[in-house]
Amino acid sequence: MTDSLRDLALELQSFAQERDWQQFHSPKNLASALVVEAGELLEHFQWLTEIQSREVSAEKREAIGNEIADVLLYLVQLSTSLGIDPIAAAQTKLKANAIKYPVEKSRGNSKKYDEL
Amino acid sequence: MTDSLRDLALELQSFAQERDWQQFHSPKNLASALVVEAGELLEHFQWLTEIQSREVSAEKREAIGNEIADVLLYLVQLSTSLGIDPIAAAQTKLKANAIKYPVEKSRGNSKKYDEL
Amino acid sequence: MTDSLRDLALELQSFAQERDWQQFHSPKNLASALVVEAGELLEHFQWLTEIQSREVSAEKREAIGNEIADVLLYLVQLSTSLGIDPIAAAQTKLKANAIKYPVEKSRGNSKKYDEL
Amino acid sequence: MTDSLRDLALELQSFAQERDWQQFHSPKNLASALVVEAGELLEHFQWLTEIQSREVSAEKREAIGNEIADVLLYLVQLSTSLGIDPIAAAQTKLKANAIKYPVEKSRGNSKKYDEL
Repeated sequence: MTDSLRDLALELQSFAQERDWQQFHSPKNLASALVVEAGELLEHFQWLTEIQSREVSAEKREAIGNEIADVLLYLVQLSTSLGIDPIAAAQTKLKANAIKYPVEKSRGNSKKYDEL
Repeated sequence: MTDSLRDLALELQSFAQERDWQQFHSPKNLASALVVEAGELLEHFQWLTEIQSREVSAEKREAIGNEIADVLLYLVQLSTSLGIDPIAAAQTKLKANAIKYPVEKSRGNSKKYDEL
Repeated sequence: MTDSLRDLALELQSFAQERDWQQFHSPKNLASALVVEAGELLEHFQWLTEIQSREVSAEKREAIGNEIADVLLYLVQLSTSLGIDPIAAAQTKLKANAIKYPVEKSRGNSKKYDEL
Repeated sequence: MTDSLRDLALELQSFAQERDWQQFHSPKNLASALVVEAGELLEHFQWLTEIQSREVSAEKREAIGNEIADVLLYLVQLSTSLGIDPIAAAQTKLKANAIKYPVEKSRGNSKKYDEL
């Protein structure tokens, strides 16, 4: 894991150790907590139109930032618990997506690669 | 946004621009895509015991890494679209959590701060 | 639990018993499976505009019906496992919502009751 | 849609019409709201062991019943908006599952049908 995410991972590890929380932090539970936070993130947008979602107020943006933070904190802890480097995994995935979604075929098209 | 996550953010921005996908990438839609991927991540653990989830095979770990990547890719794009620095938000949240969950009160206890 | 949902509940109980699946069907696991299916349901809509989501093709409607079925099947099993009557719970909730969202204050307004 | 779920569907339709909420209730938005509620449902179980989740207190069961109600209310509204009968869809799915998961092959086994 690289730089600033690694710092975060180390801090989170200390945080959990000091509180003796590793017993609760099985990958299964961390993945549950992550999807719960992802739901709270989506809640901010559920009744907005797409246009409204592009123009949220400063206050709302801060609340959304809080939920983004929660998702990232669980994502980092889950990655640590499984020995996965999330940035490396994301880079690999991005390369795979470039092949699955060639520019010519996917321009202006939101279809899934197997429907292109 | 700092270092390696910023690189990822820039690459994702080019990726979407080349494909003219910004029209689909409203914060509302990115938050939906994120929770969908978080669900796919949880799917790997749903029938495992917590102990089994701590001991996944190398093959399964790779599949899980792929889903972690998807969650991170949408999290970064959502953050970019709203002008949020996810690492800074996570650091702020972690400081708030340290106050909400003092070591003495929360040691070995999985209760929410308002039930402590 | 009333009528046709009860039939479904009974069939699902036999289904799980015949396969010796009750060991996997803890409320925790059933709630995980439910949110995973809810994510698969949302996946059908994530890149559609709201208007497009109101006009899905017959083929897509069938696929969506399949995911609705999965959500309902887990919802019924979770309810059974906890001794909850989901229809009665929904009726109670609907009555509470009528008080939280009085017609005059909430007409044409998607705000949450505590923001009205 | 059959009996008591149909009553619920009709009541929900009046509820939304009286408040002029149909404008917000696109299938896309209803599917988002459903997954958000499914996340709130899972939140009750995220740090519990499976055993603890089988033995929740009466107070907690009521809170869980509230979330089950929310999921069902959105599921019914989504079904109505798309002209889907959720009970019929669930019955069809259950029959398909009986073929995908033959008793002999799946007894005591939580593997997905394509891994059996």
